[in-house]
Amino acid sequence: MKQIILTGDRPTGRLHVGHYVGSLKERVALQNSGKFDEIYIMIADAQALTDNAEHPEKVRQNIMNVALDYLACGLDPEKSTLFIQSMIPELTELTFYYMNLVTVSRVQRNPTVKAEIQMRNFEASIPVGFFCYPISQAADITAFRATAVPVGEDQLPMLEQCKEIVHKFNAVYGDTLVDPQIILPKNQACLRLPGIDGKAKMSKSLGNCIYLSDSPEDIRTKVMSMFTDPTHLRREDPGHTEGNPVFIYLDAFCRPEYFPEFLPEYSGLDELKAHYQRGGLGDVKVKKFLNNVLQAELAPIRQRREDWEKRLPDVYEILRVGSETARRTAAATLRDVRHAMRIDYFEDNNLLRKD
Amino acid sequence: MKQIILTGDRPTGRLHVGHYVGSLKERVALQNSGKFDEIYIMIADAQALTDNAEHPEKVRQNIMNVALDYLACGLDPEKSTLFIQSMIPELTELTFYYMNLVTVSRVQRNPTVKAEIQMRNFEASIPVGFFCYPISQAADITAFRATAVPVGEDQLPMLEQCKEIVHKFNAVYGDTLVDPQIILPKNQACLRLPGIDGKAKMSKSLGNCIYLSDSPEDIRTKVMSMFTDPTHLRREDPGHTEGNPVFIYLDAFCRPEYFPEFLPEYSGLDELKAHYQRGGLGDVKVKKFLNNVLQAELAPIRQRREDWEKRLPDVYEILRVGSETARRTAAATLRDVRHAMRIDYFEDNNLLRKD
Repeated sequence: MKQIILTGDRPTGRLHVGHYVGSLKERVALQNSGKFDEIYIMIADAQALTDNAEHPEKVRQNIMNVALDYLACGLDPEKSTLFIQSMIPELTELTFYYMNLVTVSRVQRNPTVKAEIQMRNFEASIPVGFFCYPISQAADITAFRATAVPVGEDQLPMLEQCKEIVHKFNAVYGDTLVDPQIILPKNQACLRLPGIDGKAKMSKSLGNCIYLSDSPEDIRTKVMSMFTDPTHLRREDPGHTEGNPVFIYLDAFCRPEYFPEFLPEYSGLDELKAHYQRGGLGDVKVKKFLNNVLQAELAPIRQRREDWEKRLPDVYEILRVGSETARRTAAATLRDVRHAMRIDYFEDNNLLRKD
Repeated sequence: MKQIILTGDRPTGRLHVGHYVGSLKERVALQNSGKFDEIYIMIADAQALTDNAEHPEKVRQNIMNVALDYLACGLDPEKSTLFIQSMIPELTELTFYYMNLVTVSRVQRNPTVKAEIQMRNFEASIPVGFFCYPISQAADITAFRATAVPVGEDQLPMLEQCKEIVHKFNAVYGDTLVDPQIILPKNQACLRLPGIDGKAKMSKSLGNCIYLSDSPEDIRTKVMSMFTDPTHLRREDPGHTEGNPVFIYLDAFCRPEYFPEFLPEYSGLDELKAHYQRGGLGDVKVKKFLNNVLQAELAPIRQRREDWEKRLPDVYEILRVGSETARRTAAATLRDVRHAMRIDYFEDNNLLRKD
C-alpha cells in the first residue's frame, strides 16, 4: 500500500515556533525520509472560515503567510503537494455524505470540539460549520487516502473520529476508505510548546508567540521577557526546570553542538538543568543561551522566507499547481465513494438497474 | 427580475395523492401559467440519504418512481428542468459555506427539525446530515436563485431558515443571494391531506396512502375502507363533515362537473355535506362518489405513467440532461458566492492582492 501523508494548518496567522517543533519540523523530516509516496500539505482556509466567516479577508491574507512559512521551513514543492483546501470542492461533497454517518451527540462528545468551543467562548452560538469540522477533517484525510497524519497530540480525538467514519463507511458501503494513523512528535517537549508567558497554548490574541518570521530583535526581546520559575527569585535559590518555559524551549530546540558554540562551560542540557535546580544559575544566562539557540535555529528559516517573499508569483504558482494535483486525487477518491454508495447514477446506466 | 421556481421531493417511495394536491397539482399549474422564466424540480436523493444512509439502494430505486410520478402528473421536461440533487456537487459546497452562518442552537429551534426528529424517534442519535438539512435546503433554493418555492405549509420554518441565511450572507459578503418566497396551496383541504385511516400524515410505513400509481382496484378498496365520522353509526344519524377524511378528500379533489356525471341528485358539494350533517346519507354512498371522483382524477395520471414506464431510457435521458442544465445554473451561483466571499483566489490573481 502507498504511504501517504496529509496534514496542514489553518491560515489565521503567521506560523510560530509551536507549529514548528510540534509539526512542521517533523513534516520536513518525513518529507525528506524517502519513506512516503505522496505528501499533501493543506492550507485549511475552509476550516478557518468555519469560525471566521465574517473575516474571509483575514483568512485570504494569511494563506500566503502560511505558504511562505511552509517553504521557509523546508517543505519542498517537488516532494510535497502544497494546496488550498477550498480549491478542492470534492472535500465538501465527501463531508456532506460523511455527515450522514455521525450523530450529533457523537460530535458533542468529541473532546477537541468541547475544548475549542470553550476556548472560543462559543457555547450555544457555535456555527454549525465549526461544530462539524471533525467530519470535514475526516473528508480531508480520506480524500487523499492518507495513511499517516502527523499532527499534535490535541488532534488525537479528531483522528479517532476520522477512523470511526472510515469504519462506518466501509461497513455500510463496502471497503473503500483508507484507515489513517496519527504520527505524534517523538520529543515530549514538542507536543505542546507553551507561550512565552507560560500559558499552555500560544495564541496570537494572547501575544505570547515567537513567530517563524520574527526579526532577530523580536526574538531576543521575547526570549528575555519569558516567564520562568516564579520561585527562583535570586540567583542562589534552587530553581525548577519542569514547567519552566525557558527549559521546555531548550528541550524542544537545543542540540548538543550548541553548547561548545554558545555555552562551552556546560557539557550539555542535563548539566545546565542540574545547576539551575541546585541554585546559583541566573535566568538571564539561560535566556541568553536560549536566545542564541533560537537565533541559530530560526535564522535559516527566516532567510529562506525572505527569499521566497521576493518570489510571490512563484508561490502563487506552487499553490495553484498543487491545488490542481490535489483536486485530481480527491476527485478519484470521490468517484470511488460515489460508486460504493451507488449514487453514480449516470455511470454505466446505474439508474436503470434493478439490483 | 427573473421568476424562478425550485421545489422537489425526497425519493423514498412512490408519490401519493397528498403530494398531488399539496404540491404537484399546483406545480403543474404554475408550470403552465407562463408566469415563470425557469422551473427546477429536484429529486432530493442527497437529502433522502441524510436519514437513509444505510439504504442508498432504496433511494436509488425510488428516483425513477418519483420521475415517473412527475411526468405522469404533467410536469413537462420542455418547460421544467427535472434533476437529481446529488448530481449537483455545487450544492454541497454552498451548504458547507452556509453552515458557517447558522448556529447549532438556531437549527435546534427549527420547528420542522424538531417535529421530524420526533417523528423518526431520532432524539440523541440524529445524524449530523439530517440535523443540517435546513441548511442544505437553503443551498438548493439559493443555487437556482429561486424566487418562488411552492411547498407544503409544514415547510414554512424551512423557508424562514433559508431567508435568514440569505440575509446573513448578503449582509456579510455583499448582495449576492436571492430572497425566496413560499407559495402555499390556496385550497385549505390541500394543505395536508390526512391518511385514509384519518391520521394527520400519510406515510408509507403506516400503509395509509393512496398512490398516484395505484390500480383502480387498489383505489376502490382503499376508499371503501376509509375512516369517516365515528359518531355517524346509522344512516339516519347526523354526521360530521369537518375532520372527516372522506369529505376532506372531496374538498381537495371534487370538481362541480363530477356531480352531474356521478351524483346527479345533488347540485354540489355543499348540498351533499348538508344532507350528511342532518342525517339520512350513508357513508357508502359518499365513498362510492369519492371513488368515482378519484378514479376520474387519477386515471389520466396513471395512463401517462404507464406510457412513460415503457420509455424508461427516455426518462433517464430527461434526468441526465436536466441534471446537466441544473448544474450549469448552480455553478454560476457558486461562482458568484465564491467571488463575494473573496475565495476565488486563482481568478484575477486574487491571492496576491493586499486589499
